[in-house]
Amino acid sequence: MSHHVVIIGGGFGGLAAARALRRKDGIRVTLIDRQNYHLFQPLLYQVASGGLSPANIAYPLRTIFKKNKNIGVLLGDVIDFDLDGRCVILANGTGDEESLQNRVSYDSLIIASGAVNHYFGNDDWEKTAPGLKTIDDAKAIRRKIFLSFERAERETDEARRRALCTFVVVGAGATGVELAGAIREIAVHTLREEFRRIQPDNARVLLVEFADRVLPPYDEKLSGAAERSLRRMGVEVRTGAKVTALHEGCVEIEKGGASEIIETENVLWAAGIAASPLAGLLADKTGTKVARGGRFPVEPNLTIPGHPEVFAIGDMTYLMQENEKLVPGVAPAAMQQGEFAARVIEARVRGRKKEPAKFRYIDRGSMATIGRAAAVAEVGKLRFDGYPAWLAWLFLHVMMLVTFQNRILVLVQWAWNYLTWSRSARLITRDGRAGGE
Amino acid sequence: MSHHVVIIGGGFGGLAAARALRRKDGIRVTLIDRQNYHLFQPLLYQVASGGLSPANIAYPLRTIFKKNKNIGVLLGDVIDFDLDGRCVILANGTGDEESLQNRVSYDSLIIASGAVNHYFGNDDWEKTAPGLKTIDDAKAIRRKIFLSFERAERETDEARRRALCTFVVVGAGATGVELAGAIREIAVHTLREEFRRIQPDNARVLLVEFADRVLPPYDEKLSGAAERSLRRMGVEVRTGAKVTALHEGCVEIEKGGASEIIETENVLWAAGIAASPLAGLLADKTGTKVARGGRFPVEPNLTIPGHPEVFAIGDMTYLMQENEKLVPGVAPAAMQQGEFAARVIEARVRGRKKEPAKFRYIDRGSMATIGRAAAVAEVGKLRFDGYPAWLAWLFLHVMMLVTFQNRILVLVQWAWNYLTWSRSARLITRDGRAGGE
Repeated sequence: MSHHVVIIGGGFGGLAAARALRRKDGIRVTLIDRQNYHLFQPLLYQVASGGLSPANIAYPLRTIFKKNKNIGVLLGDVIDFDLDGRCVILANGTGDEESLQNRVSYDSLIIASGAVNHYFGNDDWEKTAPGLKTIDDAKAIRRKIFLSFERAERETDEARRRALCTFVVVGAGATGVELAGAIREIAVHTLREEFRRIQPDNARVLLVEFADRVLPPYDEKLSGAAERSLRRMGVEVRTGAKVTALHEGCVEIEKGGASEIIETENVLWAAGIAASPLAGLLADKTGTKVARGGRFPVEPNLTIPGHPEVFAIGDMTYLMQENEKLVPGVAPAAMQQGEFAARVIEARVRGRKKEPAKFRYIDRGSMATIGRAAAVAEVGKLRFDGYPAWLAWLFLHVMMLVTFQNRILVLVQWAWNYLTWSRSARLITRDGRAGGE
Repeated sequence: MSHHVVIIGGGFGGLAAARALRRKDGIRVTLIDRQNYHLFQPLLYQVASGGLSPANIAYPLRTIFKKNKNIGVLLGDVIDFDLDGRCVILANGTGDEESLQNRVSYDSLIIASGAVNHYFGNDDWEKTAPGLKTIDDAKAIRRKIFLSFERAERETDEARRRALCTFVVVGAGATGVELAGAIREIAVHTLREEFRRIQPDNARVLLVEFADRVLPPYDEKLSGAAERSLRRMGVEVRTGAKVTALHEGCVEIEKGGASEIIETENVLWAAGIAASPLAGLLADKTGTKVARGGRFPVEPNLTIPGHPEVFAIGDMTYLMQENEKLVPGVAPAAMQQGEFAARVIEARVRGRKKEPAKFRYIDRGSMATIGRAAAVAEVGKLRFDGYPAWLAWLFLHVMMLVTFQNRILVLVQWAWNYLTWSRSARLITRDGRAGGE
């Protein structure tokens, strides 16, 4: 009887764990996800800005593991755990599905359900200010951006027209910076000459960040370079500022005591994420207290207290390393954790004397793109920006895409966008409404 | 003061009319559509079957006319006409938009709002059996197809599993034939080896047609060839049969007195279309009686009775030619009508003595594809099928796609699908729900 590993979540962490367990004798894997695809989140902003199609950055999980007979995929929504009974419980979806399998038992469990948008207690803001975590989010934002220009073209009221052409991006992390840059590019280049009554390049794009600089986690020099590029593109950068109120049609920004009301129909949220609800559920069941952002504090070997057979990895977890540094919520960390958990499990199945005891994150650097041919990157001691950084960013991300086909499709699309500034994937479809409005 | 032409609908007819009026001195055009893109409907079934992304077959209307300053595009939903006041009335969308322009006056009007799915008085069937006219329809069907296999993999009840893997396509016109063929290909090739519990290639695909042969409008020989190809692919063809009842989970098919109940979770509708509601509205306002399928009977010069300045073209219209043949509801006919209306309008603006008096449809042939490397085509007296017909079909359709970029993207995607049988655009996203369930 083979050892059954259940993995929850087909993101970077879960995918890495499943891959590490391919073709391992005596090990059987079931990968459970709510979606039938792996989403390449770093390029989600490209979908939100009409540069890429969803299918360019999402790839069917089944296809990834089609050749690996010891790995099965289940489309399902995990709503509960029976830690003592060692099984996970799936939602049944619509009522007429009692006959669907809704319990999956495991020998080892890897929970990698990631993170969700976080509104710091203002959950009602989500309706007005969509975040950017899922494909539906991206389509909602894409719809919001392009529909605003369409409405402005029909708008007879000057003030409303200005509000429709004003975009406020909250949060200047990688996503916020990328999104703000992309919107300015759309306004200045993509939509140029396409309207008869409005001037899209008059569109205002504000980037609001609570910290005193953009891309806070990066080196100060790079933050400076990024901010200069943003300003050069016409993005109004407001650092050391926070959103204090958010209503249909306007947002209140507070900076150094003074507060400012911006009339806008487009507030986009890139300010924060919190751990998936499963982290909280796990905390209740193990009598643990969640850490900042609802993250679950895992043991040094990524297991949960009292259950060495249960691992939690990725954005949903909190782990302080010996160097007093937190494991960051980035794709490479999640992937390294997934591979670590897989190694521990294999060591146990093989009955080895020693198993890996401590996870250590190896930082291979990070990068963010600000727009066409502009980016910042830090690799080890190395810091660079501008065109070389952008090429590095492009190369790395295209190469990281799961399939050969997506790579060429994405490259073709990019080459095209680069040469023509066009964004042909800018469909305003109903799904946007479902996702966002 | 230039002559203002308003065109309703950015489909093949409206687009052709607008193109014919590009760069014409003294003529100004406003193209109104509910969508911000032109949809290449002949390839919609490829989106429904996960072969292409929506953006591959939809292209922004604004981009098409970006260089033509005499052509403007408005995103809007026409809900009424004031024929005497010579203006069209647009819906205002959500309530907070009173300030949106909602009246557009015209000197000449071209109505080209196309067709909608038609359920022969069983409109309640639409919920259970989505048609295939829009991108949202296509995504709803895509979701239905791939979600059914996912559910089957989790299904514990044998009968329900069989129902989930049974697909009934109603109507064996070009769309129905293409869809049925595509679903069999998905089951036999695309999903092969991807599931661990079910055998996708056991999936049943039934094609139900009321006429006594598939592709009724085609030559009998070609219908025969098409039916043979379908059977070779494993599609169960039921000609001379009709759907008499449709419920969640099952459909009743009547053939030669005998009736058969098929348990299925997937009924797809390709049986019929009717004229857009604007045709009926037009009929009321002109005291005309609509023809079969709610089509509006136009004058030989495509105008409406009593209003020589108003033209109606394409699938929404009914026109018997001198040769006693109806103008068919196909893209080439709509395009020729659009160009005809544009010629008449230009003749009038130029104050020419004579204007074109009678529209004549030139039939350049028709073709349908049955699946990978199989198709039927008739061009003039020529009839051919199989691989050559498929190549002709592929060439023609890819060339007809609006933009260079889409052409290469679609070719790359097709080459990939052809070589690998993969269908990478098979995302199950929420939009499907919005569109269909």
